[in-house]
Amino acid sequence: MYREETKIIDCTIRDGGLMNSWKFSDELVKAVYEACALSGVDYMEIGYKSNEKSYSKKENGPWKFCDEADLRRIVGNNDSPMKISVMVDIGRIEREDITEKKESVIDMIRVACYVHQMEKAISLSEFIMSKGYESTINLMAISKVNELELDVALAAVAKSKVPILYIVDSFGSLHGEQIKLIANKYLKAMPGKTIGIHAHNNLQLAFSNTITASQEGCNMLDSTLLGLGRGAGNCPTELLLAFLKNPKFKLKQIFQVIQDYILPMKKDISWGYQVPYLITGMMNEHPRRAIEWMDSKRKNEYVEFYLGMTEGSLLE
Amino acid sequence: MYREETKIIDCTIRDGGLMNSWKFSDELVKAVYEACALSGVDYMEIGYKSNEKSYSKKENGPWKFCDEADLRRIVGNNDSPMKISVMVDIGRIEREDITEKKESVIDMIRVACYVHQMEKAISLSEFIMSKGYESTINLMAISKVNELELDVALAAVAKSKVPILYIVDSFGSLHGEQIKLIANKYLKAMPGKTIGIHAHNNLQLAFSNTITASQEGCNMLDSTLLGLGRGAGNCPTELLLAFLKNPKFKLKQIFQVIQDYILPMKKDISWGYQVPYLITGMMNEHPRRAIEWMDSKRKNEYVEFYLGMTEGSLLE
Repeated sequence: MYREETKIIDCTIRDGGLMNSWKFSDELVKAVYEACALSGVDYMEIGYKSNEKSYSKKENGPWKFCDEADLRRIVGNNDSPMKISVMVDIGRIEREDITEKKESVIDMIRVACYVHQMEKAISLSEFIMSKGYESTINLMAISKVNELELDVALAAVAKSKVPILYIVDSFGSLHGEQIKLIANKYLKAMPGKTIGIHAHNNLQLAFSNTITASQEGCNMLDSTLLGLGRGAGNCPTELLLAFLKNPKFKLKQIFQVIQDYILPMKKDISWGYQVPYLITGMMNEHPRRAIEWMDSKRKNEYVEFYLGMTEGSLLE
Repeated sequence: MYREETKIIDCTIRDGGLMNSWKFSDELVKAVYEACALSGVDYMEIGYKSNEKSYSKKENGPWKFCDEADLRRIVGNNDSPMKISVMVDIGRIEREDITEKKESVIDMIRVACYVHQMEKAISLSEFIMSKGYESTINLMAISKVNELELDVALAAVAKSKVPILYIVDSFGSLHGEQIKLIANKYLKAMPGKTIGIHAHNNLQLAFSNTITASQEGCNMLDSTLLGLGRGAGNCPTELLLAFLKNPKFKLKQIFQVIQDYILPMKKDISWGYQVPYLITGMMNEHPRRAIEWMDSKRKNEYVEFYLGMTEGSLLE
């Protein structure tokens, strides 16, 4: 399937950083940057932009903050066609932290929010655009948003200047039919806007949900190398590039950076499908408890986790 | 999604046996049998039925042969609602090896074939039915079958007595749109027949392709515990049971047997998504070379494998 409007956003460093507090070596971040740029990836999301009032620089690596000097140490002036993206969380950034675009190598700033924060997100996203950046809103935990709340949120985005809204399946609990329904709801409610998808792999559906969304007309597709990400991880970049038939995509450099830098991370940290993530996914719950469980000595005691999660619920 | 006609065939021992030459302990096979029976699985496929002229009993465990005495040592007279299935390969079994159903605890015998063997498969399947068993034909490597061959094969099954034909994506190379097309082709060409699906996970699409086929009207769904199977493995039984809303399915025993018996197998054998399986899947090639690569010391040299596979091809 080839559609020129389709854009790939590789979030390996930003989303994968949730696994190691963004303490990647410069060498790794540079290798990911170069591989993505050479392979035709459209955007690299290199981290979160947040300030030191919100997070400690001792506890978190540079990609939690994305200071301009750190960015330029890796990408220079970014003399590649690939654009640089960062993510901001509502409340973890001040407006004065966002400089004029002409002073920054960042091209796009994405605003992550929950549905009750939508008005704040629109205001921040429009402010970001006024500074010269591209911007999106990434509406998280979509599987928990009720229809009325969603309609109100979509109507607000529709009349705003924000050009791109994401479907974020934070709990990895949606299947294809649900993705289709939500994608078509977004498209219908916001004519002329671009829709994005960010999927998680709790039910082994991250890749299939991403291509389903693409087939329905979503044009911004998030992924990470080897699916690196918290818990069950994300839609793998290598699968997406192999599937989309855009002639600009190359695979060799992607396989190279995976074998040299991403696969070796498996020695120290663990991500990808596991039964506890299936359990939170099928229950449409935040993966938090599954992640804690997988970090404990009892990680392979699936039945115990299942009974703990379902106790008092109607599930058996 | 709940449809009473949907049947789950757990193939853990039969398909997983490709990984260990069917040398499972009796204890493990019994645990899988009991867990599946208690969880509402409709059929357990316990192995291949083949004869000693074709395979050595020294090199292969009992589930490559499924002698009646071995079966009864595990399932007794099978006093459960779950049915017992075995698979046969064309040419690896003689008709005299198939006894009258009343002498066997086997309920269903599935015939695996390639498209050029379809007439032989129909003849064998009808013979099996004449002995009193249920039977299916599992048409392998469907992604390599051209349209004309497929039309001829489907017409032959349509006019036969064989009630069930499977879509087998042996190379794990199909995505959802292709599954829909093939499922609807099968359904249209063979009114009144039941369609099955057996998917592989090279592109992380085994589960999504299985539920897509189910949504299109396929009623026999193959899976294995934790996706155990050759190379990238299969559609995981636990995901399928969690997704299908049939009230008879229970998950606790399935999680128990996974944690006690299937997960520990990961210490000795490796299965599931890996980049070399993606490469053969995206090229619509048999996973043989990827499996050999993953068994070698060079298993993590993805670029080398990719270049070797694509050398001389138009892919980059």
